[in-house]
Amino acid sequence: MAQRPRVVIVGGGFGGLAAARGLAGVPVEVTLVDRRNHHLFQPLLYQVATAALSPAQIAQPIRTVLRRQANASVVLGEVVAIDRARRIVRTHDGAELPYAHLVLATGASHAYFGHEEWQLFAPGLKTLDDATAIRSRILDAFERAEIAADPAERAALLTFVVVGGGPTGVEMAGAIAELARKTLAREFRRIDPASARILLVEAGPRILPAMPPGLSARAQAGLERLGVEVRLGSAVTACAADRVAIGAETVPCRTIVWAAGVAASPVARWLGGDVAVDRAGRVQVAPDLTLPGDPAVRVIGDAATVAGPEGRPVPGVAPAAKQQGRYAAAAIRAAVAGRPAPPPFRYRDQGNLATIGRGEAVVDLGRIRLTGMIAWWFWGIVHVFFLIDFRNRVSVSLDWLWSYLTHGRSARLMTGPPRNADPATPPQPPAAER
Amino acid sequence: MAQRPRVVIVGGGFGGLAAARGLAGVPVEVTLVDRRNHHLFQPLLYQVATAALSPAQIAQPIRTVLRRQANASVVLGEVVAIDRARRIVRTHDGAELPYAHLVLATGASHAYFGHEEWQLFAPGLKTLDDATAIRSRILDAFERAEIAADPAERAALLTFVVVGGGPTGVEMAGAIAELARKTLAREFRRIDPASARILLVEAGPRILPAMPPGLSARAQAGLERLGVEVRLGSAVTACAADRVAIGAETVPCRTIVWAAGVAASPVARWLGGDVAVDRAGRVQVAPDLTLPGDPAVRVIGDAATVAGPEGRPVPGVAPAAKQQGRYAAAAIRAAVAGRPAPPPFRYRDQGNLATIGRGEAVVDLGRIRLTGMIAWWFWGIVHVFFLIDFRNRVSVSLDWLWSYLTHGRSARLMTGPPRNADPATPPQPPAAER
Repeated sequence: MAQRPRVVIVGGGFGGLAAARGLAGVPVEVTLVDRRNHHLFQPLLYQVATAALSPAQIAQPIRTVLRRQANASVVLGEVVAIDRARRIVRTHDGAELPYAHLVLATGASHAYFGHEEWQLFAPGLKTLDDATAIRSRILDAFERAEIAADPAERAALLTFVVVGGGPTGVEMAGAIAELARKTLAREFRRIDPASARILLVEAGPRILPAMPPGLSARAQAGLERLGVEVRLGSAVTACAADRVAIGAETVPCRTIVWAAGVAASPVARWLGGDVAVDRAGRVQVAPDLTLPGDPAVRVIGDAATVAGPEGRPVPGVAPAAKQQGRYAAAAIRAAVAGRPAPPPFRYRDQGNLATIGRGEAVVDLGRIRLTGMIAWWFWGIVHVFFLIDFRNRVSVSLDWLWSYLTHGRSARLMTGPPRNADPATPPQPPAAER
Repeated sequence: MAQRPRVVIVGGGFGGLAAARGLAGVPVEVTLVDRRNHHLFQPLLYQVATAALSPAQIAQPIRTVLRRQANASVVLGEVVAIDRARRIVRTHDGAELPYAHLVLATGASHAYFGHEEWQLFAPGLKTLDDATAIRSRILDAFERAEIAADPAERAALLTFVVVGGGPTGVEMAGAIAELARKTLAREFRRIDPASARILLVEAGPRILPAMPPGLSARAQAGLERLGVEVRLGSAVTACAADRVAIGAETVPCRTIVWAAGVAASPVARWLGGDVAVDRAGRVQVAPDLTLPGDPAVRVIGDAATVAGPEGRPVPGVAPAAKQQGRYAAAAIRAAVAGRPAPPPFRYRDQGNLATIGRGEAVVDLGRIRLTGMIAWWFWGIVHVFFLIDFRNRVSVSLDWLWSYLTHGRSARLMTGPPRNADPATPPQPPAAER
């Protein structure tokens, strides 16, 4: 029996997992490589960052997801190079993974537009560690405010700035407002957490730019009802430990969350200098998602850029990554079976949705648009439905129900090193690792 | 109106919280200081370390616990000194907390018997961060074994050594065995996780020395049925990144968990040189739990040592800390009201229990002793009952039910920095921070 073709998939996000599952039962050997052991349900990551859900509720070991797929194995490791001439992927520990087909699905991180030093003061939200670090920062700001003697210091500690008016920024701002105004309301003795100031800063003319203008306006009104100050047409020009500059204005604050820009992972670097990328570093792929000139390599999801319907680029959202993963699997299946390749990839837009707060969301399904309570229920049901396994669905549903009934939040933990015992160390600015 | 007397409580564990709650409605101002924001249900910490429960399921913000107690406020901070002459507690950020009554309930950590350098290779299990770090280490060992080329290296990665045969050590060893033999059984392609070797090393003549000998033997038999090798009368003489020395024998391994010895927190140092301590650094207190010669200071729980019934020291267990917290509150209530002090503290032994694995536990209630399935149910009900709030009870019960039905574990996440991208860094030994 001839050896079965090897398919290497890099990345266990929505795209990579869809590709792996699409190859179930196909006579290939699938190896999925990820530097983390878990698939992360990123659309709900902001709920971990705001203490509503626990990390384990939105993550699942990749091994568990692929447990029953006999032709798939999982390698925990970080890719450091790709040798396209020899068709080999190299990992951090020197292992070499040969491939007949390679699927790169490594996602993206946030872009700081050339100011990478801002990352220290304005962390982004891409991993579980990002989320628990931001959670600790937010909770810590209230704790420090409670013991702060100086009113200006207290006000700065109670100022939270979210940069970027996309879905993540909108959902973070709304969730911080609810945390401050509802969950923490009665738990402090010297400060009133409800007096916290939450700013959402967006450089463009409206929040949720992927939505129709009416829904953007509705979302903005919802945020403002929660007490979020929305700053449109405002670019952040500086971030520091104790302040943020928004245009010409300087706002003293201690907590900044970055939810702007997209920077692709280092796929292009692995592939070599002749690969075309867009401004965000995403690899430009052919309509069949292969690398132009190298049909053995496919790049999907946020790591790639490809023209969608009417020539607009396919958006960097989870459904697009899943569709591309399934398409890549179908194309590999066809190649292995000697069948003709499927027609070029076509993105099917399934709509956009974002939640603002309790009982308030916006949903755009093309002809159908929902707002308010009905949109919020729709949002909740869709998200629970897509959470990978049955158990997480139950567990997340119960936690949400609990939060809804009590305004409580189940995961208000500050972990990491405890308060510094060294009196010589100044307690602020909040250290990135706290 | 005269100012109400200030009571400062240091530590939000079982003892400190019981003291704070015992002062509800009493005309005093209670300040509870802790360097972490959460109360931790330590008896279930091993379940976080073995991926069965999430951190938020066994922890609760101290603020939330005391939310409705109007005379209590919570300060997140680390105590660095106590000025007994001026009756002031000083925290890391220079704040001074004056007190009329001081309750010290700061607990204990593990003792390495003069080999503090072993801590790096054999972490203890006292905080949520300890637990998630140990969880990552254990899961990482299986991941590394899956890609290890050298059989000796693979065998060392699949060897887990637990040091200390008390309840924590017994429960850890049993849980690691179940994780390897059940949960992970079908998820790897190159290794058989069920072939993992688990050693429980105890220096004394039997495990669970606080139990009657019959229950110790029963627990040992239960562990051995799960495939745990129990080494009695064996002292660990060296720990390193790649091995542990047990007496004259050297066992190659990559994961060691330390569950031996007790070292009190630095309370004695704060109180000054004239304070008497036992070998573990616990402060010797009078029968009314006050510091001899300073009735304004009480030390309770694992930070203190006091003679119990028949002159034996009160054991360092959660029920003892709770009873002492309640006693300290009662004594302060009496002092504030001008009533006579209560009779000396008397420890009421409520029994001992430990779980070995699915359907197997040992329970010692004095005259009543339980083993097997009935003991296991008793253990589960008792632990769920004592978990602080209703929500955690539901959530933990569901997770346990799920694990029982499926052998699955809900929190198999490795967080922290991802696999190192730098090929120059050797992948082992597992770094403490991974």
